Amino acid sequence: ITAPDVIPPPASNAPRISQIMRFGFPGLANIRALDDYVISYDTRNRVPYWVCEHLNDANVTRNPEVDRSQCIFHEDFSIHEFFRSENSDYKGSGFDRGHMAAAGNHGLNMRDCRQTFLLSNMAPQVGEGFNRGKWNELEKYCRKKARQYANVYVCTGPLYLPRRDDDGKLYVKYQMIGQNHVAVPTHFFKVVVSEANTGELELESFLLPNAYIENAVPLSTFYVSTDVIERASGLLFFDKISKKKFQKINGNKTGWF
Amino acid sequence: ITAPDVIPPPASNAPRISQIMRFGFPGLANIRALDDYVISYDTRNRVPYWVCEHLNDANVTRNPEVDRSQCIFHEDFSIHEFFRSENSDYKGSGFDRGHMAAAGNHGLNMRDCRQTFLLSNMAPQVGEGFNRGKWNELEKYCRKKARQYANVYVCTGPLYLPRRDDDGKLYVKYQMIGQNHVAVPTHFFKVVVSEANTGELELESFLLPNAYIENAVPLSTFYVSTDVIERASGLLFFDKISKKKFQKINGNKTGWF
Ligand SMILES: [Mg+2]
Ligand SMILES: [Mg+2]
Repeated sequence: ITAPDVIPPPASNAPRISQIMRFGFPGLANIRALDDYVISYDTRNRVPYWVCEHLNDANVTRNPEVDRSQCIFHEDFSIHEFFRSENSDYKGSGFDRGHMAAAGNHGLNMRDCRQTFLLSNMAPQVGEGFNRGKWNELEKYCRKKARQYANVYVCTGPLYLPRRDDDGKLYVKYQMIGQNHVAVPTHFFKVVVSEANTGELELESFLLPNAYIENAVPLSTFYVSTDVIERASGLLFFDKISKKKFQKINGNKTGWF
Repeated sequence: ITAPDVIPPPASNAPRISQIMRFGFPGLANIRALDDYVISYDTRNRVPYWVCEHLNDANVTRNPEVDRSQCIFHEDFSIHEFFRSENSDYKGSGFDRGHMAAAGNHGLNMRDCRQTFLLSNMAPQVGEGFNRGKWNELEKYCRKKARQYANVYVCTGPLYLPRRDDDGKLYVKYQMIGQNHVAVPTHFFKVVVSEANTGELELESFLLPNAYIENAVPLSTFYVSTDVIERASGLLFFDKISKKKFQKINGNKTGWF
């Protein structure tokens, strides 16, 4: 028996950030640790670069004393006023204030739930068929895994993918809304690591367009190789885990075991 | 007499980075200190977020032993391969490999000059009338100031400015070149602080389109308020100096003295 090759979970009394970030930081820009999630904020686009969450049975189970209707969208005064988004930016834009760290993942207490309603945790999302559709389904899928596995680690964020234009060249194009110029991402990603009670690790990477998606389209349609998201986002996910440690990737046995 | 309200220059034997960054970091993402400039690298766009330089008579004066023709554009192996630009990305794109930290600002020795030819220090620039035109004139203007003043501090970087489309909405649109998807910025900025021998401070902020610019257009055309660049870039410049300390801003006396 050699040294452990997967980092063990921190002690239960370790700082929450060390539990959430157990397998590494996707990037190191403008990081802030909230009580139950960690965010890296993109000051240029007024949305997150990424948020990371650690899900388990406790924080995905709704405490009946947590009343989500009491949680209100609020600007984040910890962000410099030049880089802060406001409710007025979203108003009339046609886009939802889409949670990156989902409210339903932080149901332990009102404080955790409220912190997910900071506008720094939002990005403009298509409402019908996305925020209130397929994206919501993906969030629920993560919570379901959290009930079945010992630990689930989720990194979520926006993407700005290039498209080929009529002139044959690649262009990135995205809308900006409101007086504070809040970027409307073209796509969103989730990279999910699930640790079974046996210690087995699974990796799933989802890339969805910020658009209406038919209900019948299965989530597995949006599986991509992690490095597609890494190259497009400029981030590296779970880099403390060797890819060879995953028993399953995007639902398929890897054959390494 | 009260405490000094402008940070004095570090001792001449202080680490070079503390001299270059005397008045603060514009941001803290992916920072690397080269021997004579400091860079923050945008892994998503494969170009810098910003570079900072400290110019003085010594480093803007060409040492006859420094042969620029010996300096070659080279990929930067310190950047993860997913986020690195290569010469092949620029080849046939129609864009120059535009230095952010200018080669002519680092003429003390071959090592400093060579380091400005790392591709991590480049962004795609229109060649004729920009990299080889107005932008080059701006670089020369900074060097001229460095000969006249005790210290000149320059922050340089790309911008991706939104435009109103036919549908009345604001969009950011920019090209990406090469296999590594290197972003072509719509604009570039320089924010320049000049410290006279008397200790007087001047601030200049330039914002230029990445486009052919007629020779006759004076540089002063491109003066903007610093906060325009700050909001668009997500950066804060020279935040260790109170704006009230500048005797001149964009060539005009401030009237605060
Ligand atoms: Mg939502
Ligand atoms: Mg040049």
